[in-house]
Formats: sequence, C-alpha cells, structure tokens
Amino acid sequence: MIIILNSATTEQIDKILFKISQSGLEPHYVEHYGKQIITANGNTKNCSIAEYKKYAGVESVFQVSSSYKLASREFKQSKSIVNVRDVAFGGADIPVIAGPCAIEGYDQLKETASAVKNAGAVMLRGGAYKPRTSPYSFQGLEEEGLAILQAVSKELDIPTVSEVTDPRKVELVAEHVDMLQIGARNMQNFVLLKEVAKTNMPILLKRGASATIEEWLMAAEYIMADGNSNVILCERGIRTFEPITRNTLDLSAVPLVQYLSHLPVIVDPSHGTGIWRLVSPMAKAAMAAGADGLILEVHTCPEEAASDGPQSLTPYKFSLLMKELKSISSALKS
Amino acid sequence: MIIILNSATTEQIDKILFKISQSGLEPHYVEHYGKQIITANGNTKNCSIAEYKKYAGVESVFQVSSSYKLASREFKQSKSIVNVRDVAFGGADIPVIAGPCAIEGYDQLKETASAVKNAGAVMLRGGAYKPRTSPYSFQGLEEEGLAILQAVSKELDIPTVSEVTDPRKVELVAEHVDMLQIGARNMQNFVLLKEVAKTNMPILLKRGASATIEEWLMAAEYIMADGNSNVILCERGIRTFEPITRNTLDLSAVPLVQYLSHLPVIVDPSHGTGIWRLVSPMAKAAMAAGADGLILEVHTCPEEAASDGPQSLTPYKFSLLMKELKSISSALKS
Amino acid sequence: MIIILNSATTEQIDKILFKISQSGLEPHYVEHYGKQIITANGNTKNCSIAEYKKYAGVESVFQVSSSYKLASREFKQSKSIVNVRDVAFGGADIPVIAGPCAIEGYDQLKETASAVKNAGAVMLRGGAYKPRTSPYSFQGLEEEGLAILQAVSKELDIPTVSEVTDPRKVELVAEHVDMLQIGARNMQNFVLLKEVAKTNMPILLKRGASATIEEWLMAAEYIMADGNSNVILCERGIRTFEPITRNTLDLSAVPLVQYLSHLPVIVDPSHGTGIWRLVSPMAKAAMAAGADGLILEVHTCPEEAASDGPQSLTPYKFSLLMKELKSISSALKS
Amino acid sequence: MIIILNSATTEQIDKILFKISQSGLEPHYVEHYGKQIITANGNTKNCSIAEYKKYAGVESVFQVSSSYKLASREFKQSKSIVNVRDVAFGGADIPVIAGPCAIEGYDQLKETASAVKNAGAVMLRGGAYKPRTSPYSFQGLEEEGLAILQAVSKELDIPTVSEVTDPRKVELVAEHVDMLQIGARNMQNFVLLKEVAKTNMPILLKRGASATIEEWLMAAEYIMADGNSNVILCERGIRTFEPITRNTLDLSAVPLVQYLSHLPVIVDPSHGTGIWRLVSPMAKAAMAAGADGLILEVHTCPEEAASDGPQSLTPYKFSLLMKELKSISSALKS
Repeated sequence: MIIILNSATTEQIDKILFKISQSGLEPHYVEHYGKQIITANGNTKNCSIAEYKKYAGVESVFQVSSSYKLASREFKQSKSIVNVRDVAFGGADIPVIAGPCAIEGYDQLKETASAVKNAGAVMLRGGAYKPRTSPYSFQGLEEEGLAILQAVSKELDIPTVSEVTDPRKVELVAEHVDMLQIGARNMQNFVLLKEVAKTNMPILLKRGASATIEEWLMAAEYIMADGNSNVILCERGIRTFEPITRNTLDLSAVPLVQYLSHLPVIVDPSHGTGIWRLVSPMAKAAMAAGADGLILEVHTCPEEAASDGPQSLTPYKFSLLMKELKSISSALKS
Repeated sequence: MIIILNSATTEQIDKILFKISQSGLEPHYVEHYGKQIITANGNTKNCSIAEYKKYAGVESVFQVSSSYKLASREFKQSKSIVNVRDVAFGGADIPVIAGPCAIEGYDQLKETASAVKNAGAVMLRGGAYKPRTSPYSFQGLEEEGLAILQAVSKELDIPTVSEVTDPRKVELVAEHVDMLQIGARNMQNFVLLKEVAKTNMPILLKRGASATIEEWLMAAEYIMADGNSNVILCERGIRTFEPITRNTLDLSAVPLVQYLSHLPVIVDPSHGTGIWRLVSPMAKAAMAAGADGLILEVHTCPEEAASDGPQSLTPYKFSLLMKELKSISSALKS
Repeated sequence: MIIILNSATTEQIDKILFKISQSGLEPHYVEHYGKQIITANGNTKNCSIAEYKKYAGVESVFQVSSSYKLASREFKQSKSIVNVRDVAFGGADIPVIAGPCAIEGYDQLKETASAVKNAGAVMLRGGAYKPRTSPYSFQGLEEEGLAILQAVSKELDIPTVSEVTDPRKVELVAEHVDMLQIGARNMQNFVLLKEVAKTNMPILLKRGASATIEEWLMAAEYIMADGNSNVILCERGIRTFEPITRNTLDLSAVPLVQYLSHLPVIVDPSHGTGIWRLVSPMAKAAMAAGADGLILEVHTCPEEAASDGPQSLTPYKFSLLMKELKSISSALKS
Repeated sequence: MIIILNSATTEQIDKILFKISQSGLEPHYVEHYGKQIITANGNTKNCSIAEYKKYAGVESVFQVSSSYKLASREFKQSKSIVNVRDVAFGGADIPVIAGPCAIEGYDQLKETASAVKNAGAVMLRGGAYKPRTSPYSFQGLEEEGLAILQAVSKELDIPTVSEVTDPRKVELVAEHVDMLQIGARNMQNFVLLKEVAKTNMPILLKRGASATIEEWLMAAEYIMADGNSNVILCERGIRTFEPITRNTLDLSAVPLVQYLSHLPVIVDPSHGTGIWRLVSPMAKAAMAAGADGLILEVHTCPEEAASDGPQSLTPYKFSLLMKELKSISSALKS
C-alpha cells in the first residue's frame, strides 16, 4: 500500500506511521518527485484504503501488487527521466555511453574519449576499481584512475560514469564522476546500495548475472527507499548454459522492465555478449527493442587491453555503429 | 576434414572412403549444392591433406575445426538461400511468417490467413499436431487440420509451414505443406531429423529450449548429412531462471549463428517471450540484429485460442508491427 | 477431478463422461491398479463433487490440485511398486542396474554383465540405439545389439533395460528387453511416450536435461493416461551453467518426487556427473537421499568405450562401491 | 607457478620477485602453513622451472594448471583441517552447525541453542545482519543480535558463526563470533573478502547462487592470497530453472571441490532446498557424498520465524535427523 501525502506535518505523518505499525505492517517514509510518501509493507490484503484516506494530510491511497513499490509503474505511471548533467535518460533521445573497460592511463583514456565523443557518444565510461574474478588480475588504477577520468572529463566536457565497489569509497568516487555504477556482482550488495543512495547522485544499476527481473527492481527499490530516485537500470546479460557467449543478453528485459517500472533502462551489449563481433548487431537490436540508452566498451587497441579486450570495439567500428544507430533511431521515431 | 570431388566416379569415391576408414576415421559421402562431398570425422589432426589431394577426382581438401562440418562457414563461405516456393530466406528481404499457434477450424484459419497476408506476411503457419505438456490438453486437429491448412493455402496462394512430430507422419504432412517444422522439443529427436531429411523439403529447425548453439548446428548437420541442405534455423528462446517470461529470447544467437554457419536463421518472438506485449519490441529487435526472417503467432481472438493465446498478437497489432518492421528494414539497408 | 468407479457398466461410464463434457471439461477414462478411473481436466473449480458422487457406479470423487492426476500422491497415497521380472522398484530393497553405455559386442557385454552381476547388480543395462549429438558418432549396434543383450540376459538370468528412440521400433525392442527406457532427449517425445504406453511393460522415464519436476511428472502422466502404470522415474542430472560436470545431478528431486508422486524414482549418477570420480560419492548420496534404485555405467575398459567412457566405472571400482552401498543401506534401515 | 622458499631472507625474496616481474608475470608473496610462498601469475608456459630452482632460498618450484593456486590440490596435496576453537572441519568427524536463520531475541536463541547442542550440534549459527531481497524485510538485530549470540555462546560453551556484510563491520563482528560467514550474495564482493582475510579468523565462504566451481575457488583464493588459510567452503544450492525448490543443491560439488582443492567443504541443505521436508534427506545425502560438515536451520517455531521459516527444522525433527546422520557416519567409516 502507498499513501501519498500533501504538505503533511510531522505530527500527521507520525499518526499514520503509528497506525500502520499497529496493523502489523512495516511503515516507511520517503520523499520522491516532490511528494511525501509512506509505504506500508507486509500482507496488506485486509487493509482498508478508505480508512487511511480519512487521515489528515493524505492525498491518495492505493494498493501496489508488486513487491517493489516506489520503482513500480503502479506508483508512478509516467516514465521517469534521469538527468546526468545535460544528458537525459528516459526521454526521446537515446544516449550512448562509451569508453574503455578499465582506465589504463591518461593518454589511453584521452584518445579513446576524444574518439567516442567525435563519433557521437555523450558520456564517458571507464573503470578505476575493477572487480576481477582472480586476485592476481589487474584491479584498476584506483584513485589515480579517478583523477585521470575527471581530468579527461573536464578537458572534453563530457560527463562520466565509473563503478564503485566499496562503501568506504563512495564519497571519493562521487567527487570524481557524474554517475556511480553498481556492477553486476554487487547488485545485491545492500550495504553498498544504501551508501550510494545517500549521495542522491544518478546511479547506474547493472542487473546481476543471475538476478530475476523482480530482484533487480527490488535492488532499485533499496536505492529509492533511501530517497534517491535517480536510478538507471542496465541490462548486461544473464548467466545461462550457453558456453560460447560470456552471457546471454536478455533484451526482452527492456520492454518488460519498462512495463513494470517507470525507471529508464539501458543496455550493455559488450558485457552482454563478450564477443566484439556480436556487439554491433546487439546494440542495434537493443535500440529497436526500445532501450533508453546504450553503454559500450571501446578500446583503441583491444588486443592490448588490460581487461575485456575481446569484447571491445575499436573507435573505427564504433563510429560505423553510431551511424547505423542514428538511422535506426530515425526509423523508430517516424 | 572435408574433401570436395569433381565428377568423381564411384570407383574413385570408394578408394577415398576406404583410405579414410583405414586411418581410423569415419567417412561420410553426401551431395550438396551440386558438389560431391566426403567428410572424414574423428581425430584428423594427423591427417595429411596433401596426401588426399593426390587422389583422382579430388578438387579440394580442407580441415574444418568445428564438430559440425556441412553446416559450417568453413565448408561454405557464402550465405545460403533457402527457398520455400517463391519466398527466399537468407537474401536481402526479411520474410515474415504468421498465423495461429493451432489450426482450430477452416473459418478461424481463413480469417487469420487473410489478415496476415494483407498486412504483409508471405507465409502462413498453423499447427495440426501440437506437442503439449499435458496429455489432457488439445492435441491439434491432426489430419483434418492439415487439410484445412492446404485448402486455405491454395485459396490465398500463400505457402505454409507446419510441425511434424512423428516419423510415421512425415510423408503425410509433407504432402500438405511447403515447409516442415521440427519443434523445440524434437530438436534432438534424431529419428525424426533423419526422416524429414529424406523429403528434401525445406525444414524449419527450432532451437531446443536448452540447446547450445553447437548442439543446434549439430542437429542441422543430421539433416544435411542425409543430403538435405534446405535447413532454416529458428531461435525461439531458451530456458533460464527468469520466471516472468516463458523463455529468454537469445537474439545474440542470430549474429553468432550467421558467423558460424551459412544457413539462414529466423526468430520466433512469440514463443521466445510468451507475452504478447513483448512480441513487437522483440520482433523489431530481431530484425535489427540481422535475422533472416520472423515467425509470429497471430490469433483473431487470443483469449479464446485453443493454445498459446497470451502470446498471440491480434491482426490489428500485427499490421501495426509490420509497418514498423518495414521502416526498420529500410533503415538497415540504407 | 478424479472419479473412482466400482464395477461400473459401460452405460454408467458413458453417462459420466457425457456429463463431464457438458461441463466444458475434458473427460478421460483409464484403468489402473484394478480400478476404473475417470479424470476430468480443465478448470474444475466450480465442479460439484457431491453431484458426481450421486451417479451410479461411482465409488469416490475428489479434487487433485496438480496438473498431473494419475501420477500424483493425491490420487494414490501408497507408494507404487513396479516389478521388472523379479526385481521390485519402490520397495524396501534398492536395486542396482549396471552395464555399459553402449553394447559393443557379445564378449564385451557378457564380460561386463558377469562382473556386475557378481558384484550385486540385479539388472543389466546396455544401449542398442544411441541418440548421439553428432550424426557421425557411433549410433549403436541396433538390432544386432538387441540380440546380444537378449542372449546375455538369458545366459546369466538377469533382466535388462534398453533405450528405444523410434515409435516404429517399440515392438521390436519390447521383444528383446524387460524394461523400455525413454532417454532424456525424448522425455517430451509424446508420440514415443504414447507408443511405449501401449506395451504395458515397465518404462524407465529419464528426466529431460532441462525439464522441471512438473514437466517430468506430466510426461509420466502421458504414459499412465494410456493405461500403463509401470513407470519408474530416473533423475540423471539437469543442465546448468556449471562447465566442469556434464550435468548437475539434482538429488533433491528424489524426496521431492516421492512427496508429489507415488511412482518410484531412481538415480543415474553416471550421466548425472559425467566424471567417473564423482560417480561413487553421488551413488552413495542418492541412496542416502532415499532413491528407489540406481543405474550405473560400467565398462571393462573405459578408455576404449565407444561412448561415455569418462563416466564409466571399471568392474573393480563398481564392486567396491557395491560394498559401500550395502553398508549405507543397512544404516538407513536401522 | 608456485615457488616454496625455505627460511629465505628478504633480500633473497626480493630478487625472485624482481625476476618474475621482469618476465612479464605478476608475483605475489604470502605465508601459509608455516611456509614462505611466491606465486607467479600470468602465462607461465615459457617459464623455466629449473632456472628458478637455482635461486638462493628456494625449496621447490612447480606449475599449477588451475587459475587458483593456493586453494588447489596441486599446491597442497594433503587435505586441510580448519579449526574453529575445538571443532575441526576436514578431519574424520563431520561437525554439524545448527541454529536459527536470524537471531530474534535472547530467549529464542538460547532455547534453540540448547536444543541443538543437546541433539549433537557442535556449533551455533545465527544471523545478526541479514541481506534481504526487499528493503522492507527484517534486516536483523545487528549489534544487539551479536551481543545475544556472544552471550548464548558463552553460557552454553558452543562456538558460533555469523554473517558479515559490510567491510566496516568486520572488526565488530569478529569480536563477537568464532567464524565469519561470507554469504552467497557476497561471494564476489572482493572488498569484503580482502577485509575478512585480514582477521586471520576461520571464514565460511558460501558458494554464490550462480557461481561456477572455479569462481568459488577463486573467491577462496582472494582470502588465501591475503594470508588467511582458514577457509571453509559451503555449498548452498545454485540457481536453476526449477521453480519448486528455492535452489538446486549441487552435491556433486562436494567430491569435485575435494578433488580440486585441499580446503574442507560443508553443505547447507536448508538454503539449498528451501523446503524443510527435503532438508533431512539432503543432509543425509550430503554426508554420504563426503561433506566435511553440515549447517542447518533450526527454529523452535518455524511458522513464526522472522526469516526462512519454511526451510527450518523444528528441534524435534533435528534430533531425529542427528540420529540418522550418526548411523550413516558409522556406516561410511566401516
């Protein structure tokens, strides 16, 4: 059950929270989209909506059938737009984020960033903290990488996104980038979700490799329940039995999430396939499926990349793809 | 190893087959694309290609790294076009097959067929033999259904595809339709694969719900090894952990199969998602991913369908989709 | 809904069948365990059990919540025992079936059969028709293999099981063996299920590699719906993302199926793991989980096996395992 | 490649580390089991073992084929025993850990702890920090829960294990318990793995719900690479397509991990099935498969549990199971 309030006083809110607790439900207060909101969680079948409507300060009351409340379309019918500086996700344009998997140095990042910006990318990606399966693999340039990312971002006037993996580093990363990324392995790292929520910055929430759609939206709910509505979802492939591809990119997640939730959803065909040859076809497919954006790995020299070379496009291949995407985008609008 | 012959005599062929057997390999002779072909299967690492080239009648000899031979791009570099009457799969145009899941009667099929043909579908689908999870579910109109399908096909001059599930019925179904479908559950029903191969008719080979790409191409190899090269592959979703969708449509299979094989590959977003709301976005995505065709379920009254109603489009929604597909198709060619 | 009749006449039965049809349900008549049974399938929520109880010839009427009826514990509370000659599955003893994956010749089979019988196996397995992923792999000795199996069976007085893959061969295989096996790839080959049902012989129904428990029980229902109650289920591993093992053996299926169904369920740890080193631990685990039997691959020379060598035990390892199994079996009974 | 040193000086070590770096490999120094160890990671195919053997201070040098080094059997042939106070995992006895999913209060924990100790459990489990899919679900008593756990542990003289989810709370949790648990969702939370490694306490590392065996051993390697060899692995079910069970308990992981690694591996049939009815059969199966221990959820009143009630055993059912386990354990030893 969700209760929307209208300029309710603290006293009015407390009365409602108390009433909910008395009914054996878990009340939760949060503000979003300029509204005061109370969610009541638990078995609300026997709750009388009419009763709650009578309380002072209440604007509307309604049931939400899904286990996620604030992330649901039932709560908010209109699609949300999440802005990262001047880039809007969820609107008519389909922003493309590009850059290397890992930041390897200033020159590498600057060169790649210039190339992808020239080709039409509106945001730069680059990892400073890399969660790697092996403790012996390159773990990222860390703080030095963040500084490089920020420098390149300023020089080229392009907003950035980078992954944060440690709740103790959220503040640091937040000072250097425009959007925080929660990687697939950390989708259910609830401690980290709560910490990034506090920044109120845009959060790119990648789907866990074996997360159901519902679990993914519940992870978004963790961020929203702590008052941050700037969540962008990112489909990046799920784990299946197929051995050739790194993951199976689940494009049906795009229209499905857009039906269940008001949050924008973008697609990462690089991690989603793990094979550069499949990246362009799947990027085009993602756009045709209605994705609200794309995030792509581009490396000037994929075979020498410190991480994820086999799935990276060269700047040239990326520029060809951008032309094709433009053409599909026009076709979809007509 | 594959050996291509040039007007070799039976005697010349026998000599080579004998030599291969002597080396502990399994020889297999077949004709495809107007060529005499011998495959040698087993561990061919120590085979001397040069030695085989010396045999009379031999045009060329080469190694094929994959376990499927005749279906591989290594064997045939150019993409194959499979014709079903005047409809070409694998060429520049992207044919759309549409129709009901099950044939329920003459009126139902005629009405649906007219509607989808008017909207631009070039082939009609309709099941007469339905493999159903429950023995108590509607199993199809069987022979009566085939007769209806053939009648409607003639009246509207539209080619047809229908599933065959029983090796004893292959001949009967073949007399009534233009393309035989092997359903997902029968992808590794090798007895059935060998039987449909004999017809030399076009075969629509659906991917099994838990088949790897390699197993799928090996199933195609069963049909080709028996001399039938008219194989069209169909991605229709794989089984994953996600409970909301019926299957997870693996669109990355499209560019991957096209890279590994010369056979055309089409997509079935109806079974691939199980939810009509996701069918149109995924049909558009499939086209953008480069699919060689689409197969879609259309029912005039989905809520009354004898089978698979929830995933069927109405004729009206189908006609809207066809317009969007046309627009994307133009964008992709430009 | 299930209606149990008591010496009902054809006329009485017809009246009930007609009444069910009139209610928009699908009636199905079958005889099992010496009882006349009618199942009514479809949405039976509004069915009045009381009404049906009034019909002449009716003994009892009850609702069954699962989609499988005859295979369910709701239909039959007591566990079923299926006899293959003098071997009982579902009783106090835990029979072990052993033998080679494929019959390769008389000497190979005889030697293996003698060894496994001496070690305590009470049934002999051996494939004459082998469904293989590649068309170029050894497909079995076919009819010759069946003859060898039958000869060895007689000489050693040990009952046998062998796979049938073709509905046209059911009669032939049935003449040579004591139990027909439906392999994992054919679990939803409904044409074949209906054909083996007719023999009324014991059927070993392997679980499909990606079949849910419900789908598996529905496959058993296909056989039972055609009047054959001699079904033994066999868990043999499901397909997951894990690459090291051939399949993931789902032992929880054993107690789960025994809770949902009255049919006996045995375990195949050879296919279930694909690695001989894991076969003994998993055989012991299967017994401890309550399996009603085991089926194991034994080969006198695994490295030379025509099929599935890596997962086969040698006769010596098999005899050691049999001793351990005996010890666990005693512990479980105490 | 692994280099074992014998009382090498810092200078000698540095020389070897430098040489490895020069070869383009990643050197890593750590001490385990009273030995000085250097691992060299990367492509070591062209490394000359003989060359490294010549360095002063070197005892032995050998290649390890797997991507995990310190966790591998190639590195350490003998099985490791990990002690938690006086409880040994990896030895002849099979310790059973039991207790509630979540600590709900002093009385609840005390009562449960007494019951499970009386029945034969040698360690107490209880969650104070609960990672929950929904932000609105009970998240644990946190610090208060830890205090209760410690109090009960002292009163009953039973060692404890509890989950830690936040790198900032590792020290706090470590002060209250005898073994730290890394939950399935955090198996690849590398920041947390590095933090718990520092404590040098026993770590119970649960397998991620979609982690391969190799990824799991790599997570153990993260802990060992930071100098902590007290790692106990815990199989707790993997995510598959089967909807009835919460997870599919992969018991083949037990013998497989024991073959690949020297670390002890225990089994959690409660989370592994999610259904109390399946817990006892699977606990017995785990023991028969060779598990080095069991961890079980026991609740005095499962239907009122704050978390995971449906999969909890009552103390009575737990005591019955303990008797059966004892009997199987004896049978396995005989």
